Amino acid sequence: MPVETQEEVPEIRERLRRVGITNLRSVAKINWKGQTYTFLPLFEVTIDVPAEKKGIHMSRLVESITDAMSEAVEEEVMKVHTSLEELGKCIIRHLEGKHPHKRAEVWIKTHLIIPRKTPASGKTSYEPYDVEVGVIKNEEGAFKKVLRVKVVGNTACPHAMANNEGKTHIQRAIGELEVKTAFEEEIALEDMIDVVESSFSHPTYTLLKTVDENAVVQGMFANPKFVEDVAREIFANARERFKGKIHVRVISNESIHKHDVIAETWS
Amino acid sequence: MPVETQEEVPEIRERLRRVGITNLRSVAKINWKGQTYTFLPLFEVTIDVPAEKKGIHMSRLVESITDAMSEAVEEEVMKVHTSLEELGKCIIRHLEGKHPHKRAEVWIKTHLIIPRKTPASGKTSYEPYDVEVGVIKNEEGAFKKVLRVKVVGNTACPHAMANNEGKTHIQRAIGELEVKTAFEEEIALEDMIDVVESSFSHPTYTLLKTVDENAVVQGMFANPKFVEDVAREIFANARERFKGKIHVRVISNESIHKHDVIAETWS
Amino acid sequence: MPVETQEEVPEIRERLRRVGITNLRSVAKINWKGQTYTFLPLFEVTIDVPAEKKGIHMSRLVESITDAMSEAVEEEVMKVHTSLEELGKCIIRHLEGKHPHKRAEVWIKTHLIIPRKTPASGKTSYEPYDVEVGVIKNEEGAFKKVLRVKVVGNTACPHAMANNEGKTHIQRAIGELEVKTAFEEEIALEDMIDVVESSFSHPTYTLLKTVDENAVVQGMFANPKFVEDVAREIFANARERFKGKIHVRVISNESIHKHDVIAETWS
Amino acid sequence: MPVETQEEVPEIRERLRRVGITNLRSVAKINWKGQTYTFLPLFEVTIDVPAEKKGIHMSRLVESITDAMSEAVEEEVMKVHTSLEELGKCIIRHLEGKHPHKRAEVWIKTHLIIPRKTPASGKTSYEPYDVEVGVIKNEEGAFKKVLRVKVVGNTACPHAMANNEGKTHIQRAIGELEVKTAFEEEIALEDMIDVVESSFSHPTYTLLKTVDENAVVQGMFANPKFVEDVAREIFANARERFKGKIHVRVISNESIHKHDVIAETWS
Repeated sequence: MPVETQEEVPEIRERLRRVGITNLRSVAKINWKGQTYTFLPLFEVTIDVPAEKKGIHMSRLVESITDAMSEAVEEEVMKVHTSLEELGKCIIRHLEGKHPHKRAEVWIKTHLIIPRKTPASGKTSYEPYDVEVGVIKNEEGAFKKVLRVKVVGNTACPHAMANNEGKTHIQRAIGELEVKTAFEEEIALEDMIDVVESSFSHPTYTLLKTVDENAVVQGMFANPKFVEDVAREIFANARERFKGKIHVRVISNESIHKHDVIAETWS
Repeated sequence: MPVETQEEVPEIRERLRRVGITNLRSVAKINWKGQTYTFLPLFEVTIDVPAEKKGIHMSRLVESITDAMSEAVEEEVMKVHTSLEELGKCIIRHLEGKHPHKRAEVWIKTHLIIPRKTPASGKTSYEPYDVEVGVIKNEEGAFKKVLRVKVVGNTACPHAMANNEGKTHIQRAIGELEVKTAFEEEIALEDMIDVVESSFSHPTYTLLKTVDENAVVQGMFANPKFVEDVAREIFANARERFKGKIHVRVISNESIHKHDVIAETWS
Repeated sequence: MPVETQEEVPEIRERLRRVGITNLRSVAKINWKGQTYTFLPLFEVTIDVPAEKKGIHMSRLVESITDAMSEAVEEEVMKVHTSLEELGKCIIRHLEGKHPHKRAEVWIKTHLIIPRKTPASGKTSYEPYDVEVGVIKNEEGAFKKVLRVKVVGNTACPHAMANNEGKTHIQRAIGELEVKTAFEEEIALEDMIDVVESSFSHPTYTLLKTVDENAVVQGMFANPKFVEDVAREIFANARERFKGKIHVRVISNESIHKHDVIAETWS
Repeated sequence: MPVETQEEVPEIRERLRRVGITNLRSVAKINWKGQTYTFLPLFEVTIDVPAEKKGIHMSRLVESITDAMSEAVEEEVMKVHTSLEELGKCIIRHLEGKHPHKRAEVWIKTHLIIPRKTPASGKTSYEPYDVEVGVIKNEEGAFKKVLRVKVVGNTACPHAMANNEGKTHIQRAIGELEVKTAFEEEIALEDMIDVVESSFSHPTYTLLKTVDENAVVQGMFANPKFVEDVAREIFANARERFKGKIHVRVISNESIHKHDVIAETWS
């Protein structure tokens, strides 16, 4: 019989809030509006440990992931989850049968590729976004979720434009939006991405023919924005569209500096 | 006369909490107990923006850094700050004369090299640590600080040891300790590093002769610890020694897995 | 009519070897032995620019990627490539019809998840690996390829073991194997991964029940290895199994040090 | 008497080219033209291992670093090296007395902060650069060196400018220059930085008052450049000024795309 050191009483009796596995790369399959998408996300799964237990049984957390999506490596399988947060909740549900705990969290981080139409030629361009979803079951058994998107856009400086007869500095900027809300709230990551992407001086595209490039250039000059403006627009639109606690962070990779500028706020 | 677009009223009237510069690499000199140390830290400096102002004057934040340590590039200079947090506060003090604001933050992130004695041969070994200091002036003008250290150590698994007649898996682990406290609290980063470093199965060293290596190996086997044990020990010791809000995070780069395990808690 | 600045003669007449797009995240689908796998790789596509042309038409490189896998975003599609290098070659073939060039390169970097059996309980464990494939068409039109795998394993130090009555330090180690070879050489990334994974003190697993953990611990102690031993074994096995130029690099995240150790060699 | 496992004959008799320590953070002091500068670089030190030796004595490599700069942690010390490559050579010289080898390499990676004058107001701005120096002693005992600099600048697209009546997209760009040459060649990292920095549409500055910002904006529009143009100019100037093998790589963080563009060439 193996010794279960985890079940011993620890020297220092202190409850720990988050113990588990992190930086675990695996496969996930999500069925979104009838289409199946495959991801290779990073997972983090944690539970609390009571003061009187030395440790947790880590392998049961891994099994909960595997059980929730065991068949997902092969493409034929049809039974898939309808969102990353449904997958996260499913992992917690599996965990309930395997390991006692009061609090549980699952975090799933991946890329999302969304087809767009380019602004002038109307060609299809596949745009990449970084997304992260957290599902948190608290001590009362209630489920909350945290949704995060990270979108690449740009800023054209209005101050330099006003002082240089229409010329200005332009640069890549990255907008991040986080919504913490009840698990039941229906919020699509795609809608959060739209809120961020529409708040820049102009959206960016992977594919741009010359006519499209011209449209983006003209659009950026027609819509000069500070990093502060981008943050305010994301914040205002997110608050209007999404119920929950909202956090916005915009970083602009200034083309005239070696450092970045930042604007951040939260509700 | 240049246009000051920053002073205009923005379309969306919303106060922003943190606007400024980030990822700015520069030089800092600190006089610690009579010795002068030079760092090449990353700086972040932010202030709040009221609802009725479109933006901030970013260059004044850069000038506040430069003014606070203008002469610091050359080594001869004698006027230096006594800690990273004193430098941070000094940057905010310079900022007060340059840019109106209610809230200001300075974050300074660097490496710290500390000489140690190796466990058996007593040779000097220079150990690197990652540290970060935040100084926050709130709306009432009160100063708080956030101190963070990140220390590399190791864990020897007690569960595997109990089940394998003394054999076990061992791995590198990283312990992080954060203390949020009043600015006046005297807490040395070196003491925080000691709390973390003494909580592993054994401290690590840059230089280890064979006798030292043996001492570390014997020490790790004499002191098996879960990542949970390390987190609890850091937390208990930090709470006893440092006044303030404490956050502990330990990551173990498991040698038997491709992923990491994590234990985290906070007061 | 748009101006084609790219076609102008540059001030400095100098041929450039590699010009193109990089860090482009997109979707790829590969049919490997009858199963379809979906990836979200990073792409780099470059061509040479002759001395008398100012620049290249970047959008045509993006279109070559899109054309090669246009339908790949939706899972239903059946027409897929049989390997990452076939996809790379297909991108170059599309490029030939779009943009004059003498030399072309495509680099595709992704994660690969492979199911394994755990050493004692025989459970299925999904193991993640980093892979990169480069396809290079040279000035004569000949195709070469570069295959790279990165595998996480471990080392148990034989020197410490000999000096501490069987006790030793153990740590995570990362082995990298690169093979540069003719495009036609049939070399599976999975086989390269096997060569690396079998060269450590022991392979690692995402899922390990107690009996499996015991097997890994016993295996590591039965098979102590320097980082040098791991590099030599990878090199010798790779040379025997794979025709081409071989490069091996092993990094061990020492548990007794804060730094890493490295062993590297090439043919 | 400790066992010296490293001296045993390995199972696989194969010479290894590079074995040693890497990612070791420490302190370095360099006296450059009469001023002493302190760095916190990352070090890599490797030697070759003959076919008949199982491994190397890693601690002797660490000691060679420590010996070469033992007193360097405290600022008062006056004995310092005149360049990073002199420090690297000094580490190899110490190594010669400690560990037999035929080939040795030392790599030192750090940031360099250089004071500049801003373009209009003439204020002092401290600019950060990434530099890396490699010193290689080959089997014949001859010393070579590799010098690398990484500089942040910008590109203003000439194609978009020609098609949009003077409007264009602008973005941050990163230029990398490497020179491999004889150890005796006198090449200052500062001069390499100048070659890269002067090849962008315009240099960037940490501090920019409004008049300076205007000068940079006007300068970027007056000097539109493809990433290809930047690479060619760096390459042509470097070849003229520096004797040795030259490698140039420029990455532009496009403001209209989510991906980057790249231009690379070498002699």
